[in-house]
Amino acid sequence: MTETFLPHPDVAAALKALDGRKTDHVFFVACGGSLSIMYPAKFMLDQLSNSLPSDVYNAAEFTHRAPKRLTSNSVVILCSMTGTTAETVAAAAFARKAGALTISLSVEPQSPLGQGSDHLVSFEAPYTTGVPIDAKNSNYARIYQIVLGLVQRYDGVERMGALMRSLDALQSVIDKAQEVLAPRFDQYAPHFAKQDVIYTMASGASYGAAYSYANCVLMEMQWINSYPIHANEFFHGAFEVLDKKRCYILMKGLDDTRPLEDRAEAFLLRFGSPENILVVDATKFDFAGVDEMFRGALAPLVFFDTLWRFAYRLADLRKHEMMEARRYMKKLNDY
Amino acid sequence: MTETFLPHPDVAAALKALDGRKTDHVFFVACGGSLSIMYPAKFMLDQLSNSLPSDVYNAAEFTHRAPKRLTSNSVVILCSMTGTTAETVAAAAFARKAGALTISLSVEPQSPLGQGSDHLVSFEAPYTTGVPIDAKNSNYARIYQIVLGLVQRYDGVERMGALMRSLDALQSVIDKAQEVLAPRFDQYAPHFAKQDVIYTMASGASYGAAYSYANCVLMEMQWINSYPIHANEFFHGAFEVLDKKRCYILMKGLDDTRPLEDRAEAFLLRFGSPENILVVDATKFDFAGVDEMFRGALAPLVFFDTLWRFAYRLADLRKHEMMEARRYMKKLNDY
Repeated sequence: MTETFLPHPDVAAALKALDGRKTDHVFFVACGGSLSIMYPAKFMLDQLSNSLPSDVYNAAEFTHRAPKRLTSNSVVILCSMTGTTAETVAAAAFARKAGALTISLSVEPQSPLGQGSDHLVSFEAPYTTGVPIDAKNSNYARIYQIVLGLVQRYDGVERMGALMRSLDALQSVIDKAQEVLAPRFDQYAPHFAKQDVIYTMASGASYGAAYSYANCVLMEMQWINSYPIHANEFFHGAFEVLDKKRCYILMKGLDDTRPLEDRAEAFLLRFGSPENILVVDATKFDFAGVDEMFRGALAPLVFFDTLWRFAYRLADLRKHEMMEARRYMKKLNDY
Repeated sequence: MTETFLPHPDVAAALKALDGRKTDHVFFVACGGSLSIMYPAKFMLDQLSNSLPSDVYNAAEFTHRAPKRLTSNSVVILCSMTGTTAETVAAAAFARKAGALTISLSVEPQSPLGQGSDHLVSFEAPYTTGVPIDAKNSNYARIYQIVLGLVQRYDGVERMGALMRSLDALQSVIDKAQEVLAPRFDQYAPHFAKQDVIYTMASGASYGAAYSYANCVLMEMQWINSYPIHANEFFHGAFEVLDKKRCYILMKGLDDTRPLEDRAEAFLLRFGSPENILVVDATKFDFAGVDEMFRGALAPLVFFDTLWRFAYRLADLRKHEMMEARRYMKKLNDY
């Protein structure tokens, strides 16, 4: 029984390195899709820790900004799927030079990031290999374990066991959500496939999923114009482009900011056309086995995984390959 | 002589209230255009303070997220031009309930925000009244004074005098920049006025200007689709939509993240068309009278003020009123 309460061995080893260290700041540092998981990680830390302030930075921004808070009392958590993202590798070196403890997430322990960090936490990703993974081995799952290890150590908050049990149940939640959403995606895909602009929207723990879906799926993979709009910032400018023709994907999560997403939904449905407003609502998912306290944190994994399948539907209809159609990324090596 | 070294009396009064208080966190909280000034304020604090961690939050996100770091040791800095933004007023009340010291910026001291905060710092804004102001009385100018007051007190960093002298010279920098940029705006406006999508881009101290220009000018005032893209995040997804037809406004500032903007410029000019890439470069401005150490912080004011005039050019060409054309904002009162 006790086994299931323990975090992944890589996480445990990284946390062990905190013995005897003072920690007064956490930096979450990455680029693009890997940056997107840092938003919910900080959300969790913000809600659980009184002792650890934190920042989320794009890796190049972090290195050039050079925040004064970065010292030997900092923990810097980095992520790059391949472990080769140049800016993130440079950020790890920069952080180590400042004496910070670096913990990096990558699928490749032998990568430059893995080799250039104090601790490597491995994870699995389906998107490069095409081989399905269990979501409990994803980057989200591992970074949440790191965050809970920090709050366990510095704030006395004990939630690791509940997280580990919840992660065991997660893949089944995602699989069931795929079935629930399939008819809805069938309905929306033909219309969305014709769009030149599709906005994404969310808040709180789900904002990262909206961020990666806009940047790394719609813009990068489908060359569709987008913008991940924060669900409340929407009302302070961006909402003026809403009309009967404008398309939005709104993620409604289960964290404490859900009222912001509810308000955005009401407005979108009032002034937009129903066929243009794709709402993915986590209350429609069956979270059996997932502790109430983690449903908000795990909803974005369900959003991203299910909407990933929606993106493949768009790609088929647009005849625009998901993984191969790139103008620049991995096609050029001199920028 | 000594007079010019002192911050605005409202700022001085707010800072005085820190006497005898312990401060271990700063929250910058607002919505929309007022949120945009919080990014460079945090940039300045990050680069100057080892003792004060900080966060920037949309006001509704802040209230619902309810970060555990918010305590009676927090300083919460809020801004709303009119002082009536409901989410910001609620955030001030939420922060005061937690025992935090609240300092709010508004043009209206008698507003709900002014009345609902511990300290009100007034500023001037030209955009509601149409009456030109001196930039030294803007929201940016006042929030920088607050930040420098904090680092003076908690980090022993003395820069207030240099800031106040630099602010005295700022309006003249802006006026001269308008002249320099006028022919460039003449050249780009007819083409940009026809666009359905215009992206903005910047990093570091200038990111807030890109944020407000995308959200509050292009989207809100001109109903043009946009997205304020971070200059390095661009390379991790968003850049794939770049082609010979896509339009961008890139701000190149003078802070330490300028290399990120340089790299974005080179890429934009390599794969985009020159007539679609409007680069506003702060090295072209005459910063006489502004201390070197503040040119990075003050460049975004010059960007925003000059590009504001560019927006009016677009509005004329599009026959789309800048201040009056709204579907929802100030037209509805039930959302």
